[in-house]
Amino acid sequence: MFRSALKLARAPASSSVMATSRRAIATSSFVPPSPFTSADQKPRHLLSIDDVTAEELHALVTNAIRHKSLIRSTRDTTTSATAGSLSAHALSASSGGLRGQTVPLIFSKRSTRTRVSTEGAVTYLGGHSMFLGKDDIQIGVNESLYDSSRVISSMTAAIVARVGPHEDILGLAEPSSVPVINALSDLFHPFQAITDIMTIREHFAPNNSGIDALKGLKVAWVGDATNVLHDLAIACAKSGIDIAAATPLEYPVNLDIVEMVRRAGDETGAIFEVTTDPLAAIKNADVVVTDTWVSMGQEAEYRLRMQQFQGYQVTSDMVKAAGANKDWVFMHCLPRHPEEVSDEVFYSDRSLVFPEAENRLYAAISVLESFVVNKGNIL
Amino acid sequence: MFRSALKLARAPASSSVMATSRRAIATSSFVPPSPFTSADQKPRHLLSIDDVTAEELHALVTNAIRHKSLIRSTRDTTTSATAGSLSAHALSASSGGLRGQTVPLIFSKRSTRTRVSTEGAVTYLGGHSMFLGKDDIQIGVNESLYDSSRVISSMTAAIVARVGPHEDILGLAEPSSVPVINALSDLFHPFQAITDIMTIREHFAPNNSGIDALKGLKVAWVGDATNVLHDLAIACAKSGIDIAAATPLEYPVNLDIVEMVRRAGDETGAIFEVTTDPLAAIKNADVVVTDTWVSMGQEAEYRLRMQQFQGYQVTSDMVKAAGANKDWVFMHCLPRHPEEVSDEVFYSDRSLVFPEAENRLYAAISVLESFVVNKGNIL
Amino acid sequence: MFRSALKLARAPASSSVMATSRRAIATSSFVPPSPFTSADQKPRHLLSIDDVTAEELHALVTNAIRHKSLIRSTRDTTTSATAGSLSAHALSASSGGLRGQTVPLIFSKRSTRTRVSTEGAVTYLGGHSMFLGKDDIQIGVNESLYDSSRVISSMTAAIVARVGPHEDILGLAEPSSVPVINALSDLFHPFQAITDIMTIREHFAPNNSGIDALKGLKVAWVGDATNVLHDLAIACAKSGIDIAAATPLEYPVNLDIVEMVRRAGDETGAIFEVTTDPLAAIKNADVVVTDTWVSMGQEAEYRLRMQQFQGYQVTSDMVKAAGANKDWVFMHCLPRHPEEVSDEVFYSDRSLVFPEAENRLYAAISVLESFVVNKGNIL
Repeated sequence: MFRSALKLARAPASSSVMATSRRAIATSSFVPPSPFTSADQKPRHLLSIDDVTAEELHALVTNAIRHKSLIRSTRDTTTSATAGSLSAHALSASSGGLRGQTVPLIFSKRSTRTRVSTEGAVTYLGGHSMFLGKDDIQIGVNESLYDSSRVISSMTAAIVARVGPHEDILGLAEPSSVPVINALSDLFHPFQAITDIMTIREHFAPNNSGIDALKGLKVAWVGDATNVLHDLAIACAKSGIDIAAATPLEYPVNLDIVEMVRRAGDETGAIFEVTTDPLAAIKNADVVVTDTWVSMGQEAEYRLRMQQFQGYQVTSDMVKAAGANKDWVFMHCLPRHPEEVSDEVFYSDRSLVFPEAENRLYAAISVLESFVVNKGNIL
Repeated sequence: MFRSALKLARAPASSSVMATSRRAIATSSFVPPSPFTSADQKPRHLLSIDDVTAEELHALVTNAIRHKSLIRSTRDTTTSATAGSLSAHALSASSGGLRGQTVPLIFSKRSTRTRVSTEGAVTYLGGHSMFLGKDDIQIGVNESLYDSSRVISSMTAAIVARVGPHEDILGLAEPSSVPVINALSDLFHPFQAITDIMTIREHFAPNNSGIDALKGLKVAWVGDATNVLHDLAIACAKSGIDIAAATPLEYPVNLDIVEMVRRAGDETGAIFEVTTDPLAAIKNADVVVTDTWVSMGQEAEYRLRMQQFQGYQVTSDMVKAAGANKDWVFMHCLPRHPEEVSDEVFYSDRSLVFPEAENRLYAAISVLESFVVNKGNIL
Repeated sequence: MFRSALKLARAPASSSVMATSRRAIATSSFVPPSPFTSADQKPRHLLSIDDVTAEELHALVTNAIRHKSLIRSTRDTTTSATAGSLSAHALSASSGGLRGQTVPLIFSKRSTRTRVSTEGAVTYLGGHSMFLGKDDIQIGVNESLYDSSRVISSMTAAIVARVGPHEDILGLAEPSSVPVINALSDLFHPFQAITDIMTIREHFAPNNSGIDALKGLKVAWVGDATNVLHDLAIACAKSGIDIAAATPLEYPVNLDIVEMVRRAGDETGAIFEVTTDPLAAIKNADVVVTDTWVSMGQEAEYRLRMQQFQGYQVTSDMVKAAGANKDWVFMHCLPRHPEEVSDEVFYSDRSLVFPEAENRLYAAISVLESFVVNKGNIL
């Protein structure tokens, strides 16, 4: 299913997507043979939210909420005197699926939240996370992706990778004998999307775990057409949440993504609108989301971008003027910069940014449990 | 209690203290709200030895000695044939308090001893330590300290941080939902101070675990007025140990620190002297301690410092001439350079430097157990 | 036994061996005292295959195969629904020897395979691996090897080190209170050699675990006279496998190594030939092995080396022309570059490179179990 991503046209929007220069290793056009003799030998990967069904997405979120509740109750009920033993006991009851196993985190760029949440999740499940940054391994530079993937996957329980071009994660997944989890590519960010649906459900439907619990809500994205938007939009569509994305004229949403989201919405009735007008997107919204305007590697464009995004800063006045629903909340995947959202919104009671960040941990636990421990059997 | 540190005047001594250039992130003067609605929600941090009472310091040392004994006896009594299972058994009996939990080590500068001992301690307690160096996270650069602290603390069991300016550790601690442990700031080094009191107690009072066991001893510090001196002096004062610090005229001890040490000494009767004369400091001393003269980042001042510290190298002749007690011992937090202590002292039987280094592990175990597993209930 | 390595003459071949510039720390000629009062206090290290007997090498390989079988059967028999608990159960039954203990990986150069396999092995045995790269610690630069080794070994279960000059690993081992494992020096690579004998045994003698199982086989090395060749040749000789090494005129095999291999062969009857003719080496060979022609740090010599190694690329035609045995197989320690072996060989059914890479994990488990958990008692 994830192969569809390969076909994504690089529309004008792609300039707003992180890109890294590739240094191809000198090699012939020889295509190495697949290590698999039948399709059912291939592990199940998570490269985009499009890789899971609406039911599976719902189950991943439900499982994340369950782990949060379990961890929280353990933490809160232990008295200080017995904290150690009790918490260890409670944890061991719910974890251990990765005991004795290693999960490499191959990160071509640094990322605090993704790293802390993923290492935390691996640890919670009893495994050892091994961080491999750009100084430790340069995917595709000194060795082909194919060779690296076959070698690393043969010694580990899963590969979690944060790459530049989405092609890299596809190249890692293709020959891998273990599940490959996309911890961010220039096209998709499934961990964040699961986290965001979880955060929305906790807030708007704390007592309704049904698959239709979020139907009729509206999410407004105001900012750049990033990888975070892509998977969030797909996830909203699969959850029955309407989504409107306002991005500057210079950064339209990739047309292939628009189509993926609309296809997902066909099954739930969720509507996906794209616009260049923040106020139009926010009208009647329950959730206003934004992201950084200047991603890593785009610092040189800072001034230009500040102009292009004029009118996009999320402020109380702007959201009020746009006519959001009165109980609107704010979300942001962090790190945040003042240009995209005012302090009075970011640090207000409407802001879900810190619970949202914490939820990254539970989303990662849920994903690793489903894809690695339970080998892709989510339901 | 740790807030007092914020008020420390940067006296002339401060030039001898590590400093890093700060790159402020562009932000308004908005002060984010406290995440705590009542004071008792705040975790207990360890930012300086001044954060613990004399009784608590004594208990931390006693507990460190107990862990050392336990680990040593496990190691020594296992025969090689059964080493694996027995040692695992004995370890699991005494540890496990951090099972399934992650402890980030946020280090703005590298440090072998601090890293090895802290990771060793987290492992011993069953947790996973996640090293975040300056290439992984730059505290306060791409994200405010407040945001980083709230996010990281929401997903972890504690934050262990080695920072430049002490303000950074204060900024991390303020909004953190988990204990923050200072693994070195430009003002304090509590891990080292606990280690040093432990090492002194093992040597001078191996069979006396009373709180007055060290009363009447004298420690002489000969060298720079560093963060290591600060917490060591406070720890000595709390332990009833007299301390005399000889530092060059150019590097006097920070006056606020002098006051903190004297205040601590008021309760135990310990005396704190400051001088520029190494011989005066060493007279009647039981322990002679020094530290590097050229800390990381001060390499450009190497020649100047060699002049300023003339007469400060610890040698057998110098200590004899000064009139130390005949059973004097030598200590150093390492790494050591030949200029500050001669080989014949450093590698002599009087030198406690290697047991002292090993004790860093047990001090870290004791601190993490008390502050993280037992949530700050030390006694 | 490992001291013999110190005496190795740096023959012309040494230019083909990785070398790093040394920055000596300023110190006197003082030689620090040994921390050991008797020889039996010293831990047993693994610095080269020459440190183990033929019987011990055989046992290390047998144990690696046993662990592979155990891990594989656990993975294959668990259904997805119960994978977590069952696999954890099976793993805990066979591991745990390092529980609560930390193993530093001191790597002066990066290495994907060595890192992944070693961290995987430490994890499998229940311990915590702590990666210390060149940005974390620079062995011998800011602190003497002696001091670093005493300090680090006092807080850890073992030291695994990848160094430049072999002298560095000798310097680390000398005062260490725990086993030091050579994860690659410019002279030796014992992990790879154990792996390669294991891979050869799996292929040529899957049902014969006797110590003579590999007698009469012939390995042909075609390429540079690297550290990998050194330990592989010794390991082959100890296993009764004939070995012929073809290296360019400019890169002859170190004469001391030749002597070590021949001495090992004296006991088993294995013959060691050195030549500059790849075809002569490959004649009647069962295994053709090569390695990169341009090691890390030698990039500037790329063009020159391409000339010097003309005729050394392993291709099907070349091996056929040379007259290898008809069931010949290909091996390579990776990473691989197209110049030293053609795609049609590298990715063919004759190629054992991927099983060989995976076997690094089991070799590391076997070594750590024998040297660390079982304290050097291999038999």
